[in-house]
Amino acid sequence: MINELFEYILNKIPELKYFKYDKIFKLESGKTLPKFQLAYETYGQLNSTKSNAILIFHALSGSSHVFKDNSEIGGWWDEMVGPNKPFDTNEYFIICANILGSCYGSTGPNSLNPLNGKIYGLDFPIITIHDIVKAIKMLIDHLGVQKLLTVTGSSMGGMQVLDWVINFSGITLSAIPMATAAYATTFNIAFNEVQRQAIYSDSFWNNGNYYSGFAPNKGLRLAREIGHITYLSEDIMREKFGRSLQNNPKLLFQFTEEFEVESYLQYKGTTFTKRFDANSYLYITKAIDYFDIRQNGNLIPTFSHLENNKFLVISFSSDWLYPTSKLKEIVFALKSNSLDVSFVEIDVNYGHDSFLIDCKDLREVVSNFLTNIEV
Amino acid sequence: MINELFEYILNKIPELKYFKYDKIFKLESGKTLPKFQLAYETYGQLNSTKSNAILIFHALSGSSHVFKDNSEIGGWWDEMVGPNKPFDTNEYFIICANILGSCYGSTGPNSLNPLNGKIYGLDFPIITIHDIVKAIKMLIDHLGVQKLLTVTGSSMGGMQVLDWVINFSGITLSAIPMATAAYATTFNIAFNEVQRQAIYSDSFWNNGNYYSGFAPNKGLRLAREIGHITYLSEDIMREKFGRSLQNNPKLLFQFTEEFEVESYLQYKGTTFTKRFDANSYLYITKAIDYFDIRQNGNLIPTFSHLENNKFLVISFSSDWLYPTSKLKEIVFALKSNSLDVSFVEIDVNYGHDSFLIDCKDLREVVSNFLTNIEV
Repeated sequence: MINELFEYILNKIPELKYFKYDKIFKLESGKTLPKFQLAYETYGQLNSTKSNAILIFHALSGSSHVFKDNSEIGGWWDEMVGPNKPFDTNEYFIICANILGSCYGSTGPNSLNPLNGKIYGLDFPIITIHDIVKAIKMLIDHLGVQKLLTVTGSSMGGMQVLDWVINFSGITLSAIPMATAAYATTFNIAFNEVQRQAIYSDSFWNNGNYYSGFAPNKGLRLAREIGHITYLSEDIMREKFGRSLQNNPKLLFQFTEEFEVESYLQYKGTTFTKRFDANSYLYITKAIDYFDIRQNGNLIPTFSHLENNKFLVISFSSDWLYPTSKLKEIVFALKSNSLDVSFVEIDVNYGHDSFLIDCKDLREVVSNFLTNIEV
Repeated sequence: MINELFEYILNKIPELKYFKYDKIFKLESGKTLPKFQLAYETYGQLNSTKSNAILIFHALSGSSHVFKDNSEIGGWWDEMVGPNKPFDTNEYFIICANILGSCYGSTGPNSLNPLNGKIYGLDFPIITIHDIVKAIKMLIDHLGVQKLLTVTGSSMGGMQVLDWVINFSGITLSAIPMATAAYATTFNIAFNEVQRQAIYSDSFWNNGNYYSGFAPNKGLRLAREIGHITYLSEDIMREKFGRSLQNNPKLLFQFTEEFEVESYLQYKGTTFTKRFDANSYLYITKAIDYFDIRQNGNLIPTFSHLENNKFLVISFSSDWLYPTSKLKEIVFALKSNSLDVSFVEIDVNYGHDSFLIDCKDLREVVSNFLTNIEV
């Protein structure tokens, strides 16, 4: 019973709150949601001038739980969020919402469809990055936040940053997109598609209709294993595992996993099935694939209406899923519109997941940027 | 009935011959094969001085059918083998054998186990690159070939080249390893493991026991789709497919494949299930994973006994599965032993599969090398 698992996890986060929108929400596809809710967390206090709010967007498998704080569960960005961290909870009012389509308290394929009282499954409509961002804007309005010091996010979170700033530039002083792209590349789509195929292939998936029985954990595990390879660099894989054998001094000459990297991937994949919903994985990877903010392939006009927004664009040298070249395309288009842009490629060998690790350079560059935004 | 399919394919190749070894063949694992056969093809004529023989090793999914010649079926290396091609069948005596463990006529998991008259399935012993090479050496002896002008192969074929030259340097004038490595990297193992998991996940796989029923085509298809992504560069993917949609002018907002790259991968995967055996895929990827000719991590002593062998090492600039850095490690170790080595990185954007495409630079560099080998 996968949904009981999410309830169990969410109950461990005392800061979790819900924003409920009880009217029809129109989606980019033309379809609608009769209503929705977003799970969200806030940390720190909005100051008297309401000028210290920061909105953080999470990536594919993230949640609103950006910071551990008083919960038992670690936050996904504890390296960057908290007292005396760049996103300093003593100084800023930090907001992070679980995205539409996800499984951590926001409305998604594992939610009840109010029209028939059954779990949506594949009846949940396809959503886009823009739908996700629009829903979060409603939360921001609901919180009475009228100005954002910055919006930030990595990977799919960076796509939300870009979509946000295009649509809500007037209330957004600055933006920090990291390890992302202005469109899902052919490569991104290809890797997402094989991950979806891994889920479809699991007979327990049953066309998305599995909430009363066994979840398609084999398929989701394989999807995550494939994904995980793309999150790491070849360098860090070699450094962490090399060709080391697991639990056996010599080759076993059999098909069970024997190299450490095999065990590691299986561990990562298995752990993931205990914290994520396979259908959410399908919907969110699809939202990534659809993302393309260029206009007829050109990114320059996308930003032409922006004026005073300040940007810090960050790439990681060893990221091959969202390589530096993709971030440079964003920088080029912003600069072509005479916008105030800083660009940093952080030299780190961890691959795409570099934004999640302990990284002094990342902390410094973000801290410096934040202290120099004029409110 | 997957084996009937292979019979059908093999019957279309008039040049196909079989080498049968009817004694016990000892494997690196310590296990044995009671006997084996290799399917092979030869093109051109061995000259009177027996000095024009060239041995070609195929990659993961290849066969002995390196050259189309009079068959209805295209050869896998028609770009490089044939009259007036670098491996000129008018000039050289070309030999190519299907490897042990494969499904194109050589003994593998889809063969009958002579000990019980049943198809091996997973009772087939795990084989290594060295086992594969040792079996081909017996074929070469059987053919009466005592000198090889060159041995060549790409990818897993290049691993065989390296293993061959280490073990049989005395009868080998030169070697041309391409797009390969002296050991499977952590990255290679990781990608091979998720491909194997895709096969294991298919319920039709049935622990390798499917030869009397339906083959695990869903699993094999997904494995090949994942593999195929690793064979192409991001550049060529973008160039070929970009974000183009298939059969529909707009986004469909549904889960069926809609981007061209998705349809292409599915087509490639599906086609593959009509020409390859899932168990062979498992055994051969495992042989790749085991490959490591370094001695305690050092490649220099591996080649220390070589003396007069000449090398042409070739990498392809856009190959990220067997990147140039891996070929340079081989070059460095050969050079450290004062061997005669030429190294060329061919600037081509096709990725790992570059060795299979029409490539003038590759043809020229190989032709020049061959004409300069002193017999």
